[in-house]
Amino acid sequence: MRLAELSERSGVSTATIKYYLREGLLPPGRRVNATTAEYDEEHLRRLRLVRALIQVGGIPVAKAREVLSHVDDESLGRTIRLGAALWALPQDPEPDEEDPDVVAARAEVDRLLESLGWETSREMASLSPVHRSLVVAVATLRRLGYPWDAELMEPYARQMHQVASRQLDFMETYDTLKEQVEVAVASAVLFEPVLSALHRLAQEEESARRYGIE
Amino acid sequence: MRLAELSERSGVSTATIKYYLREGLLPPGRRVNATTAEYDEEHLRRLRLVRALIQVGGIPVAKAREVLSHVDDESLGRTIRLGAALWALPQDPEPDEEDPDVVAARAEVDRLLESLGWETSREMASLSPVHRSLVVAVATLRRLGYPWDAELMEPYARQMHQVASRQLDFMETYDTLKEQVEVAVASAVLFEPVLSALHRLAQEEESARRYGIE
Repeated sequence: MRLAELSERSGVSTATIKYYLREGLLPPGRRVNATTAEYDEEHLRRLRLVRALIQVGGIPVAKAREVLSHVDDESLGRTIRLGAALWALPQDPEPDEEDPDVVAARAEVDRLLESLGWETSREMASLSPVHRSLVVAVATLRRLGYPWDAELMEPYARQMHQVASRQLDFMETYDTLKEQVEVAVASAVLFEPVLSALHRLAQEEESARRYGIE
Repeated sequence: MRLAELSERSGVSTATIKYYLREGLLPPGRRVNATTAEYDEEHLRRLRLVRALIQVGGIPVAKAREVLSHVDDESLGRTIRLGAALWALPQDPEPDEEDPDVVAARAEVDRLLESLGWETSREMASLSPVHRSLVVAVATLRRLGYPWDAELMEPYARQMHQVASRQLDFMETYDTLKEQVEVAVASAVLFEPVLSALHRLAQEEESARRYGIE
């Protein structure tokens, strides 16, 4: 397809597509002649992913380029390729390890992972920015007087494991590994708001069931 | 306790506490003499909630005052009191009802609620900003080429219902209705980051289990 069709099918203006091409976020089209290039379904898919990262995720262009370079890196194993892209997304800053709430939160998170048997997560703890986010979130709860311990977190973690498992099942319905990695990265950005809205809606529903509405 | 102790126990500076008192976010202490007031456990709890709303939730002072006025409104029933406080939190803007993705997303959300039997949520659909958030999130997925329908959402919604149900159980371990409403509002702000971090950590763990690490 030509640039105009790519623009129409993606809902992204031709000016923006040209900008993404210049910034290397989108691979160049196949040259037909001096002024025209052909684009294909892969360009359309990539364009949607770029939109998800930049427009919905609010990720800067340079960061998006880094995420996409991991998505495209055929030399990585599947878990690392997926992880490397997710880890390149914006993350919490390093917590203050002198802070007693951070120390206590780190211990609780470790107890949680042990009791869940999440051995990989324990091994990767010092590397993973996702692990760090959990420590920061639990430390904040503690600081504000809600001392969430491993036992309180465990049932939620199991529930989230089921959610994650379903998402990987969904990811696996895509044919190629490249598409699977793309959909995983897009859903890291796009899926969180759906989950969060479903969660709040369920709170309303359950509250109405238990206490009625009057 | 005196102002200095309230400051120490909450980790909030005396200057900030005085500011919250002036802004009506914290009820005045009991006057002991012309220059001294006494504060109690309820002040400490309220101060933590104010911190959660303003510091973690990034909610402006005027909005926080509105949320707290609902928390304190004894005339409201439990569901409404809880709902009114949650609804006063910052919400998505109204979606564009002419947008075909919004129209399709609204129809899918309605199909979802019907198949879940969430009757209250259906009845409150036009009022609830939470319902609106879900429509907006699903419309964004569709726009970017991930057409999530009711069938795909349903298992996640059931999982989130279990999470919400556990949270209400936890809320009910607090003695007074006022404390229960407070903990519900705080957890709307503080709990989301924990759930989101658990979700991403579970993705890493499950991915490593399925595909190994190499």
